[in-house]
Amino acid sequence: MKKRSPLQGVKPQVIKVPAYTLHAYEAEIKLNQNENPFDFPEDLKEETFRRFRARQWSRYPDFVPDLLRQRLAEFAGWHKDGVLVGNGSNELLQAALMVLINSRTRVAIPSPTFTVYRLISTVLGAKTISIPLNPDMSYNVDELISQSQKSGAGVLIINTPNNPTGSVMTEEGLERILREFTGFVLLDEAYYEFWGHTALRFLKEYPRLIITRTFSKAMGMASLRVGYLLANSAIAEQISKAKLPYNVNQFSLTAAEVALENAARFRPAIEQVLKERDRLGRELGAVQGIKVYPTEANFFLVEVAAEPHAIFEDLYHQGILIRDVSSYPMLSKCLRISVGTRAENDRLLSALRASLAKRIPCMPGAKEEGEFK
Amino acid sequence: MKKRSPLQGVKPQVIKVPAYTLHAYEAEIKLNQNENPFDFPEDLKEETFRRFRARQWSRYPDFVPDLLRQRLAEFAGWHKDGVLVGNGSNELLQAALMVLINSRTRVAIPSPTFTVYRLISTVLGAKTISIPLNPDMSYNVDELISQSQKSGAGVLIINTPNNPTGSVMTEEGLERILREFTGFVLLDEAYYEFWGHTALRFLKEYPRLIITRTFSKAMGMASLRVGYLLANSAIAEQISKAKLPYNVNQFSLTAAEVALENAARFRPAIEQVLKERDRLGRELGAVQGIKVYPTEANFFLVEVAAEPHAIFEDLYHQGILIRDVSSYPMLSKCLRISVGTRAENDRLLSALRASLAKRIPCMPGAKEEGEFK
Repeated sequence: MKKRSPLQGVKPQVIKVPAYTLHAYEAEIKLNQNENPFDFPEDLKEETFRRFRARQWSRYPDFVPDLLRQRLAEFAGWHKDGVLVGNGSNELLQAALMVLINSRTRVAIPSPTFTVYRLISTVLGAKTISIPLNPDMSYNVDELISQSQKSGAGVLIINTPNNPTGSVMTEEGLERILREFTGFVLLDEAYYEFWGHTALRFLKEYPRLIITRTFSKAMGMASLRVGYLLANSAIAEQISKAKLPYNVNQFSLTAAEVALENAARFRPAIEQVLKERDRLGRELGAVQGIKVYPTEANFFLVEVAAEPHAIFEDLYHQGILIRDVSSYPMLSKCLRISVGTRAENDRLLSALRASLAKRIPCMPGAKEEGEFK
Repeated sequence: MKKRSPLQGVKPQVIKVPAYTLHAYEAEIKLNQNENPFDFPEDLKEETFRRFRARQWSRYPDFVPDLLRQRLAEFAGWHKDGVLVGNGSNELLQAALMVLINSRTRVAIPSPTFTVYRLISTVLGAKTISIPLNPDMSYNVDELISQSQKSGAGVLIINTPNNPTGSVMTEEGLERILREFTGFVLLDEAYYEFWGHTALRFLKEYPRLIITRTFSKAMGMASLRVGYLLANSAIAEQISKAKLPYNVNQFSLTAAEVALENAARFRPAIEQVLKERDRLGRELGAVQGIKVYPTEANFFLVEVAAEPHAIFEDLYHQGILIRDVSSYPMLSKCLRISVGTRAENDRLLSALRASLAKRIPCMPGAKEEGEFK
């Protein structure tokens, strides 16, 4: 038999696409993954253990998690048949793309945004169209519509608030897109609790709108991987065919039920993050050599007047992990910083000031540490 | 705007393919999902809680679960770079198909087998080729090779032991397939612990072989959704691109680590299932109106001399749930019965004898209940 490459038969677009990777840095203060700095409440952890202890682990979860879907429907204000539960919201986004994408489909994706959208679309065989944000990182609705439409895109993916920029798609912008763009709009609302706005009210009128959300951010459950999707029920039914049976494990289903029964308990942490976001934004804005972009999420995109990776490394050596996003399009001078607890944010600010002072020593008129612009 | 169907833009093959569904029957005795009747050991449950309690739930799992991959590599006897961990083995099968299937790919699938293979392949846009088992439910290796090769299939999926028939692909058969078929072979070894054989030794020589396994059966963790894949490391690297980041939640990762550290603890349950399998096989074989197919898994395929759904219903009314597989190709007279505990199997046998005696009252020479053939 002729010797051949083990990769012969693997789709060329898969071989070409770079994997989504994250170097496994460890640090005392983690401000690199937009996680909730406030943990799932201890008594709710114990309640989850209590309920799960009573179950036989050797038995499959419910075929369709109807109880959780019902709770989610009530929580979100949508009907149960239009709700799907996933192993994180990305699984549902992937399932949606699986039923929408074939090799002739183009997927329009704003840029910069969450890398996984392009990765999933490419692996599934679609051609992707990148549509740049405005220089101030706001969405360019005219371009989104005209380029999506011109390229014949079947799907447009929008993240609002957008990772890693913090920018949002306004209601007016979204409505124009839904009216003028004829394909599906996948709207990732992973950070919506921090913004306080949702596109839910458009679902009824525009069945081409598909919304995904997550328990990983505001609900403090990143470790448990629970997301949900809100859509027209006929669309949800088709997407569910691409979702594997028993896609969410019973422990995470149980924790999500407990969380929804106690949804009000998660508000104080969200409020605290929002309060800290305002403070951190002001303080960052006062640091010499930093430009802060407006954000509606639980993180900040900042542009720095020094080599971003050097700043990243300085902070890392101080036990603080942020995200170096300088390899993203348009973001060659940028870093992304999650909002932490007050103490974490103080440590961050102090380390960041020291790093910038060291890295841009010749800056004329450098301000005193802590002075506001 | 012109009124249009909300499904316009959804792939036609998705709309056509029936969803994988399972009616949510509840019963005291569950012999319908090939689950382990013996639960995850209580002290190991508590150890899992203990480790997970100490973690912040609001933090993502490790980007790549290296510790678990290393343990799995040692457990399976393969190298870490060729091991992937999934949200159940089906997720890994789906990821493998995502990187192998495009709209021109044909996927060869024996028939009857686990329905999800065809569902995933169809959703991903492949044409599927069904290759019938022999009438005695054994694999027809000649046909598998010639039909896969003739149709230009890029992938052949084999389940061994096979759900729902219990039949196996012999080492000789598999080696012939690997030598003569030029596409990828996805080998689902979900039930391999009950058979005691694995195709692992072929992985080195045949990089087109991809093996998946699960913690859902022998390891008593169906509720937690953990599977793994063993493959050539270059192939595993490509498949990992289709696997979403953080695809396995931290609780299930923790439980799997605890299970692997205590792997010997799961042997007695497996031995007990095997002992009961032998007994149940003998006793089923002695029931008038039942033909038992040979099995190497933890379930039996049986052919019944009455309407299978009527038998299913009779048992259900006795609090016993089995699987009606009569809608599968070749299995119009068949039911599938998981091996339960001794007491569960006794209840099953007694209800089955009563049902058959009622349903085939005129059978000449009907034997006494419990009499052996």
